[in-house]
Amino acid sequence: MTTKEYIKEHEEKFLNDLFGIIRIPSISAESEHKADMQKTAEYWRDHLLSLGIEKAEVMPSTGNPIVYGEHIIDPNAKTVLVYGHYDVMPVAPLELWDQPDPFEPVIKDGYIWARGADDDKGQSMIQAKGLETAMALGYLKCNVKFIFEGEEEIGSAALYPFLEEHKDLLKADFIFVSDTSMLSPEVPSMTSGLRGLCYWDIEVEGPNRDLHSGIYGGTVANPINELCKIISKIVDENGHITVPGFYDDVVEMTADEREMNKQIPFSSEEFCKSIGVPAEQGEKGFNTPERRGSRPCFDVCGIWGGHMGEGSKTIIPSKAHAKISTRLVANQDHEKIAKLMVDYIEKIAPKTVKVNVKVSHGGQAYLCPIDLPAYQVAEKAIEKAFGKRPLAVRSGGSIPIIAGFERILGIKSILMGFGLETNGIHSPNENMPLDMWFKGIETVAEFYKLFGTGN
Amino acid sequence: MTTKEYIKEHEEKFLNDLFGIIRIPSISAESEHKADMQKTAEYWRDHLLSLGIEKAEVMPSTGNPIVYGEHIIDPNAKTVLVYGHYDVMPVAPLELWDQPDPFEPVIKDGYIWARGADDDKGQSMIQAKGLETAMALGYLKCNVKFIFEGEEEIGSAALYPFLEEHKDLLKADFIFVSDTSMLSPEVPSMTSGLRGLCYWDIEVEGPNRDLHSGIYGGTVANPINELCKIISKIVDENGHITVPGFYDDVVEMTADEREMNKQIPFSSEEFCKSIGVPAEQGEKGFNTPERRGSRPCFDVCGIWGGHMGEGSKTIIPSKAHAKISTRLVANQDHEKIAKLMVDYIEKIAPKTVKVNVKVSHGGQAYLCPIDLPAYQVAEKAIEKAFGKRPLAVRSGGSIPIIAGFERILGIKSILMGFGLETNGIHSPNENMPLDMWFKGIETVAEFYKLFGTGN
Repeated sequence: MTTKEYIKEHEEKFLNDLFGIIRIPSISAESEHKADMQKTAEYWRDHLLSLGIEKAEVMPSTGNPIVYGEHIIDPNAKTVLVYGHYDVMPVAPLELWDQPDPFEPVIKDGYIWARGADDDKGQSMIQAKGLETAMALGYLKCNVKFIFEGEEEIGSAALYPFLEEHKDLLKADFIFVSDTSMLSPEVPSMTSGLRGLCYWDIEVEGPNRDLHSGIYGGTVANPINELCKIISKIVDENGHITVPGFYDDVVEMTADEREMNKQIPFSSEEFCKSIGVPAEQGEKGFNTPERRGSRPCFDVCGIWGGHMGEGSKTIIPSKAHAKISTRLVANQDHEKIAKLMVDYIEKIAPKTVKVNVKVSHGGQAYLCPIDLPAYQVAEKAIEKAFGKRPLAVRSGGSIPIIAGFERILGIKSILMGFGLETNGIHSPNENMPLDMWFKGIETVAEFYKLFGTGN
Repeated sequence: MTTKEYIKEHEEKFLNDLFGIIRIPSISAESEHKADMQKTAEYWRDHLLSLGIEKAEVMPSTGNPIVYGEHIIDPNAKTVLVYGHYDVMPVAPLELWDQPDPFEPVIKDGYIWARGADDDKGQSMIQAKGLETAMALGYLKCNVKFIFEGEEEIGSAALYPFLEEHKDLLKADFIFVSDTSMLSPEVPSMTSGLRGLCYWDIEVEGPNRDLHSGIYGGTVANPINELCKIISKIVDENGHITVPGFYDDVVEMTADEREMNKQIPFSSEEFCKSIGVPAEQGEKGFNTPERRGSRPCFDVCGIWGGHMGEGSKTIIPSKAHAKISTRLVANQDHEKIAKLMVDYIEKIAPKTVKVNVKVSHGGQAYLCPIDLPAYQVAEKAIEKAFGKRPLAVRSGGSIPIIAGFERILGIKSILMGFGLETNGIHSPNENMPLDMWFKGIETVAEFYKLFGTGN
């Protein structure tokens, strides 16, 4: 029996298993669902055991419980650690859903409609059903561990200490994650990178009170003028960040990655139209898909000072403020970048004002080298199910826990996601196309068929 | 009898005349004092007539009444138009005054304490008593007109149309104003210039909504980044405004003025300490007193955009805003400057955002050439009363009505003020040193003695 045939035969059962977990409204952001979190974790434990996984349990954490499972077929074989999350986003406003109950899945027009159909119950179940298929067909040649958390949508606060505490238990060769998206079924892709972040608060302090701009204008530094000058000096006319040492650790794209980047379907016109801008703008020498995922950038996220109300007030304000951020790429260390920026701003700030730059927070970037054996197996599995080699796409956003896995457990994650941009995650009418879901299961099963001894 | 002797002899009477007008609480900003405005105007009319002025009347305006008086001794002689205002500022908070009633003048420690003791009842009465003295001693060789308004503290809205309507009535050779300050009795000065103003609102519009800075960072122009760049390009590293044509009409200081500027008592250390800044900053080639009054400047009065609350929000904001202003000096035309700035910003703005610059308002600068005959007579009169030639000081602020006189009536104003910075105008415990007040009267009388046929 082929993988496809096995899945075809079990379609109804697979869907019912998914629907069972979708029906529990495990909204982590709403405290009245506390009992549902426990219930969902127990559903997963029972379901993993039902697949024939030798051990599965609901473990306490500092927050919602964490489901751990393991299936060790050979202590000397490779070990895959599957990560997913069983919590979902809130559903309000209910009236924007086309179905009365977002937790009662509906199959319509070739889609599964429900909160969690994609993020991440649908995708986690792809992992479970893929493994089930692989086990049934005798593909499995590696050990598998599972970790499903219940707080991804509210920041994974409990997972970090859990990882620290259970490093041995969670030992694996890599982490397998289905919680991201593909470009489209016709242009399959994997997320090979995530950007990191560094965020600062700047305060520029001038006179000890707002001054009359007639009496003092032209004689003292204006904190807003100076803040603007500082900000304008951080990026040059080529879109390059001027902070000394800023690019030192940036891992440049390989020729293969740049080649794949070119194949990403992208229309400048549609891109600009979708966000209502006259033209793109970014670092010279790179196109928009490259700039988005593979290049760091500098953005002011907020600025304020002086008179912000109606009419005019002729003052030199006492203070000006900004919240500034950089997105980072591997292997930029956010703590190192944080310090470089502080040093630079202190260096370029005029002596006529007091400038206070505080590091607000940061997160590491993540990069999965596309020559990593497990990544290459995943590529082949996708090619088998989707008919095309997936493009490696570095994503512009951040998934902090992925960098957390690397930092705490010291291992890479393979981000093999089966979502689509149109799936409406976090929004009303969340959905998952049925064919993507079944192809996802097939991909995971094919992965296990290809992975094991030898890679 | 000398001028001094005459004034000495009439001290009590002069003070009583002043106290009479101070006692009417003519607060223009408070509508419950409407009747007091009429009462004060009538007091002035009666008082002018009591001096022997041949004609004085309370004239209606679109706001509070305006007092007009004239004393024509010879249709071929020069004519002085004395301007003053009879309205005063509110007095709250009452508990900060050392006297129970700010409208019941107190003489203590050599000062007159009361609302209006300086601004402008005290100073207007200097003009009236100076003329009274001049008339009594037979000094008067010119015609005199009076115009006292009742809305200076709330913007003089009614005065502008009044001037337009009564151009013929108000015909004069110059306007004589006592409503400004001197540096000190030891360093007498006259205000020879006032700065103008131009004020704009800028809006920089980027994407049609706030964007996720991870997904879009580095691919589109950030409106705050761009606004900061625009602002930073308006002033160069020498503190020079870069707008083409901006300085074309600036009247440079004469050598005499620069020489006088050097004599203005000024301590950088005290200046910085008083406003809590580490150092001065301004246009290269000029010192602080020069920068304040004789040079234009550019200040951002307010800026805002994006996330201004607590914590961090990783966005590229849709819009950014600023309120920007320039202080202008003669003969910069605020309407011309308004357009130059708009053109410049539109030129330097990147094509990746929409930039909207709107002119908010403006006002002309004022310059009294210090070689104007009436100015030079005023200088001599001050020298006679104070023992020193007064320094010509260009002030950093604006008195819109002074530019209005020049624009509508086509004549210059001589700003011969006897206030001191320590007089607390607009504040609790407003005061006027008795010796300044009497010296002011002497100066005005000496002015009339020197001015007339020949100048």
